[in-house]
Amino acid sequence: MNANDDVLNRLKSAEGHLRGVIRMVEDDVYCIDVMRQIQAVQAALNKISANILENHLNSCVITAIRGENPSDRERVLREIADVYEMATKT
Amino acid sequence: MNANDDVLNRLKSAEGHLRGVIRMVEDDVYCIDVMRQIQAVQAALNKISANILENHLNSCVITAIRGENPSDRERVLREIADVYEMATKT
Amino acid sequence: MNANDDVLNRLKSAEGHLRGVIRMVEDDVYCIDVMRQIQAVQAALNKISANILENHLNSCVITAIRGENPSDRERVLREIADVYEMATKT
Amino acid sequence: MNANDDVLNRLKSAEGHLRGVIRMVEDDVYCIDVMRQIQAVQAALNKISANILENHLNSCVITAIRGENPSDRERVLREIADVYEMATKT
Repeated sequence: MNANDDVLNRLKSAEGHLRGVIRMVEDDVYCIDVMRQIQAVQAALNKISANILENHLNSCVITAIRGENPSDRERVLREIADVYEMATKT
Repeated sequence: MNANDDVLNRLKSAEGHLRGVIRMVEDDVYCIDVMRQIQAVQAALNKISANILENHLNSCVITAIRGENPSDRERVLREIADVYEMATKT
Repeated sequence: MNANDDVLNRLKSAEGHLRGVIRMVEDDVYCIDVMRQIQAVQAALNKISANILENHLNSCVITAIRGENPSDRERVLREIADVYEMATKT
Repeated sequence: MNANDDVLNRLKSAEGHLRGVIRMVEDDVYCIDVMRQIQAVQAALNKISANILENHLNSCVITAIRGENPSDRERVLREIADVYEMATKT
């Protein structure tokens, strides 16, 4: 199983979890329990994002930084700083 | 449309968004773009959680606090403090 | 020691921790170690916010909700929904 | 002014802000207002962390990745993935 398959499986599991949350709301489950399950989905998505970033660092980022194109290098570093900043806001 | 329907619609939209993210990974879309879409799903889930909390405060919480059962009152307040603390961790 | 003193002590400890981070930057400590200490300060601040909310729920919020002023009641609930939403963004 | 000075100034400003929060608690300011100021300090710390990461990417990370030591390279990438994962939890 490659890194991408692992990310896919985790995303599908998070999506199944979210469908479960939708059923909870349809079944009028207690609000706080719904909120806790949404927080669990978000924790799973955080973990998936961290995995994607790790794969990205070990492929595209290494290639760009070891490559000869300074604007590629700048771009990949800029993108990492950006997703980090976004991550602290969500 | 009642408050519950609004939450349901937003949850279904977030789930559709997450299915889109799965397709992006299947299509080998650039990692950073996938991460940004995951962050967008999380921002939507944050908004939904806040809506659920607001509905909850205006129904169960008011009922429990105005009611005569001190342990119910304590429980609803304890739960709010708990989901708040969890929210700061995800 | 009342609840307020506990919050004060924790805030002073977080502030001391932050002064330590400033010294780390002055001493050119490795960036990642600085970032980890900033994250530790933020985890402490999250915990303090949750404590303040808990105290608030058990005092002002109970008083307002059990009181006879509907606009006070609405205001305290509105404020809780707001700080929750903000918390999911920081 | 170099990048480090900018980080230092922002950290000192965040620390002054936090001292202000301590005074608010000493003066028994309304809980929700205290919580909002704590959230503002955290937003400032998020921004500072993102700046430190950006400086780090443009110095140590480039050097390590363009260098000839594979274990250095692995370490810097591992550290970035780690601080990202931590950031999504605080």
